Amino acid sequence: MTAPTDHTAAKAGRTLISVDAMGGDEGPAAVVAGCSLSAKLNPDIAFILHGDEAQLTALVARRRELEGRCEIRHATDVVTMKDKPSQVVRTGKDTSMWSAIEAVRTGEAAVAVSCGNTGALMALSMIRLKKLPGVNRPAIAVLYPSSNPQGFNVMLDVGADVRADADDLLRFALMGTSYARNGMDIARPRVGLLNVGTEEHKGRTELKEAYDLIRDQRDQAGFEFVGFVEGGDISGDAADVIVTDGFTGNVAIKTGEGTANMIGNRLREAFKYSPLSRLASLLAYTSLMRLRRRIDPRRVNGGVFLGLNGTVVKSHGSADATGVSAAIKLAAQLSESRFNDKLAARVAATLPTEETPI
Amino acid sequence: MTAPTDHTAAKAGRTLISVDAMGGDEGPAAVVAGCSLSAKLNPDIAFILHGDEAQLTALVARRRELEGRCEIRHATDVVTMKDKPSQVVRTGKDTSMWSAIEAVRTGEAAVAVSCGNTGALMALSMIRLKKLPGVNRPAIAVLYPSSNPQGFNVMLDVGADVRADADDLLRFALMGTSYARNGMDIARPRVGLLNVGTEEHKGRTELKEAYDLIRDQRDQAGFEFVGFVEGGDISGDAADVIVTDGFTGNVAIKTGEGTANMIGNRLREAFKYSPLSRLASLLAYTSLMRLRRRIDPRRVNGGVFLGLNGTVVKSHGSADATGVSAAIKLAAQLSESRFNDKLAARVAATLPTEETPI
Repeated sequence: MTAPTDHTAAKAGRTLISVDAMGGDEGPAAVVAGCSLSAKLNPDIAFILHGDEAQLTALVARRRELEGRCEIRHATDVVTMKDKPSQVVRTGKDTSMWSAIEAVRTGEAAVAVSCGNTGALMALSMIRLKKLPGVNRPAIAVLYPSSNPQGFNVMLDVGADVRADADDLLRFALMGTSYARNGMDIARPRVGLLNVGTEEHKGRTELKEAYDLIRDQRDQAGFEFVGFVEGGDISGDAADVIVTDGFTGNVAIKTGEGTANMIGNRLREAFKYSPLSRLASLLAYTSLMRLRRRIDPRRVNGGVFLGLNGTVVKSHGSADATGVSAAIKLAAQLSESRFNDKLAARVAATLPTEETPI
Repeated sequence: MTAPTDHTAAKAGRTLISVDAMGGDEGPAAVVAGCSLSAKLNPDIAFILHGDEAQLTALVARRRELEGRCEIRHATDVVTMKDKPSQVVRTGKDTSMWSAIEAVRTGEAAVAVSCGNTGALMALSMIRLKKLPGVNRPAIAVLYPSSNPQGFNVMLDVGADVRADADDLLRFALMGTSYARNGMDIARPRVGLLNVGTEEHKGRTELKEAYDLIRDQRDQAGFEFVGFVEGGDISGDAADVIVTDGFTGNVAIKTGEGTANMIGNRLREAFKYSPLSRLASLLAYTSLMRLRRRIDPRRVNGGVFLGLNGTVVKSHGSADATGVSAAIKLAAQLSESRFNDKLAARVAATLPTEETPI
């Protein structure tokens, strides 16, 4: 956390993104390459890069498009994938992750991006940014490929917390609505509550309670409520926002990703099977690449932490330049739409700020 | 429930399957077609068909391979997909589903097959067959396509009950082990406990308890314990048996199926996109059909109810002849291996028969 090295980054009119450059399996080279890709695509963004100054200075110097658009903020330490969140909260002051969140806390940047340890990032974000008034449990939201016209559904929580009561689920519905409106331009998102059946009598007790709470808020909060939805609707077109607890959501998206990977692998094997099928794969190359782009998780890379004083985008740990660039694009979009202010207003307008007793 | 019309079905040496012929979206024609397909493939099976005698007699008469291998047992009523389980338990005595389970209860058949209403089938099976000693919560197990050599993983519970405590999860591990051994010929199955991360400190309290309980039984019960697994491992090769509660399991398999369907639809669109890609799909036809067979859910159609005095196979409601035939094949295999006796012995040997206080 030394003095900035390049004050031109924060130039007027630019959207400033705070980037933890050291997190992630691919190291700072992939992160800087991702920043570089974003900088080419969007002339209005600039970066505060947090991490080892010597390494980052060398990496940035090689990218002409980053000239004058990166401020490097030195951090001596790095959060590894194995560090326990509780430990990072206590002793992580000198890490690049802490420094990246700090730039959001002080208001220099509206959004931080990190490829690092999800648990540590969530814990640090909670402790440093604090929860929004009216939010008891923050959530991680992702965009899941779907057959809806917009190509994706918002799903939350996918792992901020393994629990959620009826009241939390209502707030997830409100936050998901804000996200769908600002991230996907859907004026009146359709919200579905994830359950094991669509009949009202099915499922756990807290889901029946949440059903009533969410239904009663639909008009005031400007969303449609389609009621209970099932696992198959996560990739379907029955709802735009899928609300669930962080345990179920986490298992569901990992199951979906795993299944998609298995099918992809078998498809590749099928195309390699015979000379004819190898020829076929050449002929279908363009179509298959188009398909891949539509369902490529790297294109929508980024879980968003919702419910805090500031937005944090978690990029996949294994993200390459394309993945990091997608996360930065999302961060810029949310920053430019002043998303977090709108979300805060939405939650505050709909709910009492006192915590509902559980 | 009139008198049998054809006693030759139960001829010595034949495996007798009790089939609810009226359940399912496709009606009795699809069920009888499925029986016919199975009869062609396996000369050692015979059927008790439960349902409308006039309809079934006409359908069976058209299938020469079913001659002398079907006993038709008349039932005046049918359980619909909309009937509530509690209602069916009270007033369902004259339904084909009840009659099909009854043939297992009396010991005429070891396994029953139905395409009908899952909730009603589970409720009736529980009430009529009763739980095995030592089992508090029965479970539904499915085979999920995976990258393991056997091509599938056993997963349970996928929806018998929305709850499961640590003790139930241990019994799921034992029952899943029996199923993997008798259904997939794996001598020493690897069991994984589904969680949101593989680290031991993660997840819900009951999962940490279940972790210890399952680990302590691995040698006595003859399985490997690979510890916590994640959603991506359901289709992966880290474990052969995936243990979870019925809420999470149900959401997970429906998410996986939905994602697979979405990818399949988009693949078809991609192949229709241009003349070249249409040509490619022709060239790749054989390979793509091979892929489809490997991941086609109809080929492994059948959730199995475990933990009762008798085995019940739930086929998909929308199953066609291929799907019904797959469910019957599974039923025959489980019947021939005397699976339920082995499972009962396994649970009884490992656990005290008294219920553990919850």
